[in-house]
Amino acid sequence: MAKDSYLVGLIGSGIGPSLSPALHEREAGRQGLRYLYRLIDLDALGAPPEAVGELLRAARDLGFDGLNITHPCKQLVIGHLDALSPQARALGAVNTVVLEDGHATGHNTDVTGFAASFARGLPDAPLERVVQLGAGGAGAAVAHALLTLGAGRVTVVDALPERATALADILGGHFGPDRVVAATPDRLPRLLGEADGLGGLVHATPTGMAAHPGLPLPAELLHPGLWVAEVVYRPLETELLTTARARGCATLDGAGMAAFQAVDAFRLFTGREPDSARMLADIAELAGPVTAPK
Amino acid sequence: MAKDSYLVGLIGSGIGPSLSPALHEREAGRQGLRYLYRLIDLDALGAPPEAVGELLRAARDLGFDGLNITHPCKQLVIGHLDALSPQARALGAVNTVVLEDGHATGHNTDVTGFAASFARGLPDAPLERVVQLGAGGAGAAVAHALLTLGAGRVTVVDALPERATALADILGGHFGPDRVVAATPDRLPRLLGEADGLGGLVHATPTGMAAHPGLPLPAELLHPGLWVAEVVYRPLETELLTTARARGCATLDGAGMAAFQAVDAFRLFTGREPDSARMLADIAELAGPVTAPK
Repeated sequence: MAKDSYLVGLIGSGIGPSLSPALHEREAGRQGLRYLYRLIDLDALGAPPEAVGELLRAARDLGFDGLNITHPCKQLVIGHLDALSPQARALGAVNTVVLEDGHATGHNTDVTGFAASFARGLPDAPLERVVQLGAGGAGAAVAHALLTLGAGRVTVVDALPERATALADILGGHFGPDRVVAATPDRLPRLLGEADGLGGLVHATPTGMAAHPGLPLPAELLHPGLWVAEVVYRPLETELLTTARARGCATLDGAGMAAFQAVDAFRLFTGREPDSARMLADIAELAGPVTAPK
Repeated sequence: MAKDSYLVGLIGSGIGPSLSPALHEREAGRQGLRYLYRLIDLDALGAPPEAVGELLRAARDLGFDGLNITHPCKQLVIGHLDALSPQARALGAVNTVVLEDGHATGHNTDVTGFAASFARGLPDAPLERVVQLGAGGAGAAVAHALLTLGAGRVTVVDALPERATALADILGGHFGPDRVVAATPDRLPRLLGEADGLGGLVHATPTGMAAHPGLPLPAELLHPGLWVAEVVYRPLETELLTTARARGCATLDGAGMAAFQAVDAFRLFTGREPDSARMLADIAELAGPVTAPK
């Protein structure tokens, strides 16, 4: 008998507003699966990030088929796993754990999700010179994805220079030191000038989210010969995307990465192929403009 | 928004063949609920019965809405609960735990389930003199139910006299010492003679299950003036029921208790009213005659 019942969850801090339960459960409903996605919020439990190991073991014992893992546990969880996918190992971060026969395997669908979104949304975009803003967790996944997509050089820019350097060192060790370098924000005008016609800008900081409105860089740096990819997806239409489009740039919003990381996790959890177009439409609906309460 | 998603499970030993997942999930499906019932088998986990406390805490942390508890944990779980229903407290055994807002409340739907089944299946049966075979866990619940239904006297008979005495002492303390007494099997002919026309026989030992075929007492003790209630439900038609019916006794099979303990648990877990007739039909189908594998 084919398995048709799945229990999964998300471990992290402050995850109440997560769209993952709705995203996964909607797709499972369309596929006729009995599928439950539970939020396991460290804040609500009063548990420290280190509790992720115990929660993982508990989930395995109680019959969970898998877990998504988010901030602040993506690195901490690794010591509690039996195996890692190549992306998770290279990045040193896990956002998806598959539990099967008592065995826990870590994956990173932020990486595969951004890669899938980029390949779909900007299929012909040049990748010779990519400038990336932000070297945090999302930034690490995105830079990794760009390098697997064949980016000639990714320059990582962060307001914290040591964070940019650390990420460049890690990825450089994996993809070659000349393919990923660190830089400080004052070099952005020159870097984006060099990328004009040869690549684009990836934005992986929180600027543009409801709590952090604004533009992450001066508008005049956005040349029409650059593409602009956004990681923020709440709201879907950030000030960066509006500005970039107005200045003639091809753009990619954050919905794709959010949808495809879920698409890839759903596939890992169930072994079934989700309908990515429908999940992308769900993201657009769920993360769309805030309307009056019904 | 009304809650429409429920995660529950069963903790116990050797529970692989349990019908509870199918029973609960079928009814939930008819009600349009997203409802997952997981088996948490101590044997499969290699965990001792005392692990029930840790598993309960884990289930609470991971978002379970409730648990059924079975052998060998029905007593052990009590020390880990915040509150008990009157039946669970009187019996000292819990088979259902409701988890809500971090609070764990123990119930016993074996008691309420047998009472509901009896009231439905043998509504006019006299209860002045009841003879009960078996003073184990099921026997304790059934004797308690009979006393709450108003039984004048329940005589508990067990091959282990100290077990019968212990149960009679506990229930006697709650319902009055003259309403429940212990006896040894050699007194069955006299006891059943005295019950003729005034009551009946409840069978609460494993005899008659596939692994323990046979009759739990000599057939000639079954007078037509006795009703006979069976706790065994796999198979539904035990040798005791066949024999009792042939000898003119009104009978009640074990499906009702199995169904109504699930009906009552489902109601406690969800706050919704299950369709007991449909769940009874499910039991009959699920526990029905073994057929060749498909």
